[in-house]
Amino acid sequence: MRVLGIDPGLTRCGVGVVDVAPDRSAVLVDVVVLRSPADLATPGRLARISDGLEAIVEEHRPHAVALERVFARSDVSTIMGTAQISGVAMLIAERRALPVALHTPSEVKAAITGYGRADKKQVGAMVARILGLDAVPKPADAADALALAICHAWRTGGVAGAAVADAAAGRGAAPAGGLTPAQRAWLAAERAASVSGAARRLKE
Amino acid sequence: MRVLGIDPGLTRCGVGVVDVAPDRSAVLVDVVVLRSPADLATPGRLARISDGLEAIVEEHRPHAVALERVFARSDVSTIMGTAQISGVAMLIAERRALPVALHTPSEVKAAITGYGRADKKQVGAMVARILGLDAVPKPADAADALALAICHAWRTGGVAGAAVADAAAGRGAAPAGGLTPAQRAWLAAERAASVSGAARRLKE
Repeated sequence: MRVLGIDPGLTRCGVGVVDVAPDRSAVLVDVVVLRSPADLATPGRLARISDGLEAIVEEHRPHAVALERVFARSDVSTIMGTAQISGVAMLIAERRALPVALHTPSEVKAAITGYGRADKKQVGAMVARILGLDAVPKPADAADALALAICHAWRTGGVAGAAVADAAAGRGAAPAGGLTPAQRAWLAAERAASVSGAARRLKE
Repeated sequence: MRVLGIDPGLTRCGVGVVDVAPDRSAVLVDVVVLRSPADLATPGRLARISDGLEAIVEEHRPHAVALERVFARSDVSTIMGTAQISGVAMLIAERRALPVALHTPSEVKAAITGYGRADKKQVGAMVARILGLDAVPKPADAADALALAICHAWRTGGVAGAAVADAAAGRGAAPAGGLTPAQRAWLAAERAASVSGAARRLKE
């Protein structure tokens, strides 16, 4: 499945696209950090980032969108920009009938490194290793977006329509019955891989 | 000038349209509260509200959009929905080249009632009086959206292109030189009305 991961932000918005196979292997498709100048008014900044996100969706046609779930932080103005971009990103996905999933930073860290409190450096190093890259994607927003996309594919078992629980919507976390042959193959591969410990993390 | 006021929210989004004349008199054009069901996932809720906002913009063709400036409140999930809707609303305005202005709740209260800590009842009563309505618009989100629209027209002196300071963008609050005849007429009327005390509030 192809997942678009978005680390939302008004100044820097990390965007990563990965293809993840049933055996959990992942390939980098694209990674970019969209930016908007701080001296532009907020509506113009939102439009810049929105244009960039739409272009990437059109170019790469992902099966699902994974966004960082935003929590309150110390800097209120940062939260606002982040929440505004996440709203714009969700709307772009909804208009194309793409499933959207939200993952917390600790969920992403746990999925990628096995440790929910991993630092940015550890996440970046694991992302590079998973994707077979020579260098860690920079800036951190780029690595975070890729980590989100990989995390999403791994947590959903690669079933594009099965968005991980949006807690606000009260959705279930697991794909329901009536799986397609491809989905069954994915789940079988998932179970076979459970000795690696990665599958255990899926059940956290 | 015709102003669209938006009190952003995911569950209830107040929307008010008013026409404000150079003599500061205001006429109700439309008022509605857009809603989205809490059991829908966030992207779908954003799309519902976005559809409603776009329909109102298309129908009434406002000259400017006034939004409530969102601050951190106790309930983080409410802030997120509010910020997401405000992002979507700003983008809708930007796509149509409409100026967007943000006003804080206390700026709106001060402009409408002369008192920055007025309660919702006082704001509603003044909105009804300004617009010559028999009853206070309900729910409070509707009255708040109308108050925002009136506040914006009054604070900008009715000059559609002169958005009140978006603090983040560092814009100036007052219209610059090179006024059109209509703008000069507005300012003259504004000065003539200063005995009422309303113009003093404009200079706060």
